[in-house]
Amino acid sequence: MRRPFDLTLYLVTDTELCRPRPVADVVRAAVAGGVTAVQVRDKVASRRELLALTRAVQAAVADRPDVSVVVNDAVDVALLAGADGVHVGQEDLPAAEVRALLGPDRLIGLSVESADDLEKALRLPPGTVDVVGLSPVWATPTKPEAGPGLGLDTVGHLTSLARAGGLCAVAIGGIDATRAAAVAATGVDGICVVSDICAADDPAAAARLLRAALAPVAIR
Amino acid sequence: MRRPFDLTLYLVTDTELCRPRPVADVVRAAVAGGVTAVQVRDKVASRRELLALTRAVQAAVADRPDVSVVVNDAVDVALLAGADGVHVGQEDLPAAEVRALLGPDRLIGLSVESADDLEKALRLPPGTVDVVGLSPVWATPTKPEAGPGLGLDTVGHLTSLARAGGLCAVAIGGIDATRAAAVAATGVDGICVVSDICAADDPAAAARLLRAALAPVAIR
Repeated sequence: MRRPFDLTLYLVTDTELCRPRPVADVVRAAVAGGVTAVQVRDKVASRRELLALTRAVQAAVADRPDVSVVVNDAVDVALLAGADGVHVGQEDLPAAEVRALLGPDRLIGLSVESADDLEKALRLPPGTVDVVGLSPVWATPTKPEAGPGLGLDTVGHLTSLARAGGLCAVAIGGIDATRAAAVAATGVDGICVVSDICAADDPAAAARLLRAALAPVAIR
Repeated sequence: MRRPFDLTLYLVTDTELCRPRPVADVVRAAVAGGVTAVQVRDKVASRRELLALTRAVQAAVADRPDVSVVVNDAVDVALLAGADGVHVGQEDLPAAEVRALLGPDRLIGLSVESADDLEKALRLPPGTVDVVGLSPVWATPTKPEAGPGLGLDTVGHLTSLARAGGLCAVAIGGIDATRAAAVAATGVDGICVVSDICAADDPAAAARLLRAALAPVAIR
């Protein structure tokens, strides 16, 4: 049976933004502040480095089995680390291939940047993808190639479609504490944050602020 | 039991050098000319593209089960494609981790650029690595970061050490038909070729020339 994943406040790591602090230290603080899931993302690291990074993050949250650790893109790294799942983009390995390697119990997330992407995700066999990452809500400097933002209305619309098809939806791109409640109000299962936590002087405080902003809105 | 791999003439693909021909077409011709093993290498392709490329190469040599198809670096791709093995460099996933994912029967190759690299490879548990790729014999434009060449004497010396430790050795870097016999005479189990086949007008003829050059020297 698939483990329940709590994606309410989903931290996506950025090694550069965390510097000079180790990513694992930022993650530990962020989880103490209320982050419920972590995606290890580093597009410039070698697979060898990414494996070490993933294991460091897992060690940092080893006392929190309720917090999932997901690996961006690298299925081989996820398998070796025994990660809770993999998140793939439209250019990464196809989700159905990733599912074949990961087996049925781990989380697979898929970035969705348009209604067309979502339609394709919904046509996959049930159980292929667990969650779509609607991206970006707003244009963001951490992923300039992602193009203009979807906006809240589209996020809400795509979330409804995803839900109707049995998928969870999280939103990513430009979300901070001032915007978190508005994003949550669209009906998503969670919000993803990169800069607002990774670049924060106090990642625990940043996570607490985000959780406080989400509190009035029932996620799920 | 591990399948015998014939690495006598080992083609490492370069998508750019093959253009405008599809890599799979070049591979098919090269195998007809005498290539005994193929490593699919494309450092700029996404994993999605590399998976498609690997499957295309496998399809091109489907009538030649004696010809191994190995994937460079991407263990997830190799698993999905059911490739015959993986070749990793010093910066890729550690060989012991790759062995854990691939199981005992597939080939694992490891690039070795110095006596120090070889020593580390020889300290791995038996069965971790099957073959070391001594690299580069000569400096080569297809891998400028690989530094100056090892030279034939060092290749011969490292090959003896590898053999004594139960590993096979192949040599790569700057090898063409005019140099193939001299490299084979060092005692290696095979020679790797990139440009001399991928950039050739007639890859089958290039492979035949290489095989003819190797014929007077007993490889194994």
